[in-house]
Amino acid sequence: MSRKTDSVPDLVTAARGGSPRAVARLISLVEDASPLLREVMAALAPHTGSARLIGVTGSPGVGKSTTTNALVAELRRRGERVGVLAVDPSSPFSGGALLGDRVRMSDHATDSGVFIRSMASRGHLGGLSWSTPQAVRVLDAAGFDTVVIETVGVGQSEVEIAALADTTLVLLAPGMGDGIQAAKAGILEIGDLFVVNKADRDGAASVARDLRAMLTLAERGPDGWQPEIVKTVASVGTGLDELADALDRHQVWLEDTGHLARRRTRRAREEVQAIALEAVRARWGEVGDRGRLEELAAQVAAGTIDPYAAADALVAAS
Amino acid sequence: MSRKTDSVPDLVTAARGGSPRAVARLISLVEDASPLLREVMAALAPHTGSARLIGVTGSPGVGKSTTTNALVAELRRRGERVGVLAVDPSSPFSGGALLGDRVRMSDHATDSGVFIRSMASRGHLGGLSWSTPQAVRVLDAAGFDTVVIETVGVGQSEVEIAALADTTLVLLAPGMGDGIQAAKAGILEIGDLFVVNKADRDGAASVARDLRAMLTLAERGPDGWQPEIVKTVASVGTGLDELADALDRHQVWLEDTGHLARRRTRRAREEVQAIALEAVRARWGEVGDRGRLEELAAQVAAGTIDPYAAADALVAAS
Repeated sequence: MSRKTDSVPDLVTAARGGSPRAVARLISLVEDASPLLREVMAALAPHTGSARLIGVTGSPGVGKSTTTNALVAELRRRGERVGVLAVDPSSPFSGGALLGDRVRMSDHATDSGVFIRSMASRGHLGGLSWSTPQAVRVLDAAGFDTVVIETVGVGQSEVEIAALADTTLVLLAPGMGDGIQAAKAGILEIGDLFVVNKADRDGAASVARDLRAMLTLAERGPDGWQPEIVKTVASVGTGLDELADALDRHQVWLEDTGHLARRRTRRAREEVQAIALEAVRARWGEVGDRGRLEELAAQVAAGTIDPYAAADALVAAS
Repeated sequence: MSRKTDSVPDLVTAARGGSPRAVARLISLVEDASPLLREVMAALAPHTGSARLIGVTGSPGVGKSTTTNALVAELRRRGERVGVLAVDPSSPFSGGALLGDRVRMSDHATDSGVFIRSMASRGHLGGLSWSTPQAVRVLDAAGFDTVVIETVGVGQSEVEIAALADTTLVLLAPGMGDGIQAAKAGILEIGDLFVVNKADRDGAASVARDLRAMLTLAERGPDGWQPEIVKTVASVGTGLDELADALDRHQVWLEDTGHLARRRTRRAREEVQAIALEAVRARWGEVGDRGRLEELAAQVAAGTIDPYAAADALVAAS
């Protein structure tokens, strides 16, 4: 079967049957905004909703990719199939890091229970690609038990990851002034679990202690979850068992409290709204130079109408 | 006249008559998204379109506020009335800097030809406040010849400033590795003028040389403007005359080529579109838990419909 003639239903069937090639091809269709995108999304929908979504974020240098790598190994040990989406310009998954890291990541290269894909980030400022939630749908429908989204903690990405994931895992490490940085970046509010990696180094205990103190003071949402702090030395696999257990506890808590269903509905609402707004915007822009928006903009620039009145006219005309 | 009873027409008349209090009050109405916002915008519209908009951006430490301060003094010397909007958490305008800076900024405190206002930035990630373009409209209508928008070069703000301003001024300084940072941050593409500040320090010549070389290689838009590089020592006023001349040259070039009119129409289009999209989004959200969006989101979360089909249904229903 040549790839040209793969039908969408065939690809979905193959992806669900464990074909990494079919999974890769579906994600490419999503990333390329293929004309088949809608058909792909429609075919995937009935099979979605069972994967657990874990977001991993943290400053460069905390050992994010090492920890993701070790976490994947631990989840595999527990019999899970794991998909990884790396939206991180500095990640070895994305090709941005040292050769040593790339070699290390190839631990999973021959394991069909692991699927790793790098996603382009949105521009030089970071931020998730618009196609990230849709790539998650592909992996979810393909039967991966856990999908890990790894993103560097800069720009908008850490806020976006928290909106997308079931569980947001924030990585810190000693010797990076992370305590104060954590408070600054607002990650105290978004982390469900905090990992102090490189816990064999000087200062790890004080990072954990400072973090605990700050979490006590942080204004967290009213959901009632008490964020856990786990210490790891990901490079040698220490603490990964505890981390996987903590992830399980958070997932059980999400299910038991009904937060999981609410989070997923909220996520779907954001996704639907974003697609719908884009459709509306495209319709306004489509008409080009002769269009109503262009005409109204010229009037606003000339001062003959104000922008609010122009917006009212635009909405009324659409 | 108590401030409670100020009517919008009275405020606009007073602002145009030179009352800083009326200008401040109008900007507050804008920032607070007052119920009077639409009336304010409608009253301002006929008086807008004559101010020159200059965006000033650069990394922390390059002397951004010192340069803005010196530029304001130079433009005053040339007889211009100048408004400053500081969207910069580290700016002395915004209250984030050392006392020394604040005192220095008070140079203009008693000058009725200068109006300075700090604007809240959007969240901890920087980025212009949604109300920045509308505050610009207030200053424009109040008759300020030049409006300077100062923003720190992090996050989205430098891209947003370039979209908003007529002329984008990017500041660099020696000894900050700015050459390479400039290329990384994409500011080579957005700067109309580059200022190498602290030009009395070692390395200033090489910063200018590297910058010139990179600008030759940078993929700039097809507009045909060759960005100028100006050296300043803003703390002692050196180079400000050249900078003001360069700003004038860019403005003349914008007018002569028709780019100014096109930029302003494009800016109006973005503004109208953003307001209209927000109105559409509000309408979808307004209906709350009983609404169509909520219902569709629940179906997407349950896998009974895909997000694109849901978005189609939402747009069709609106």
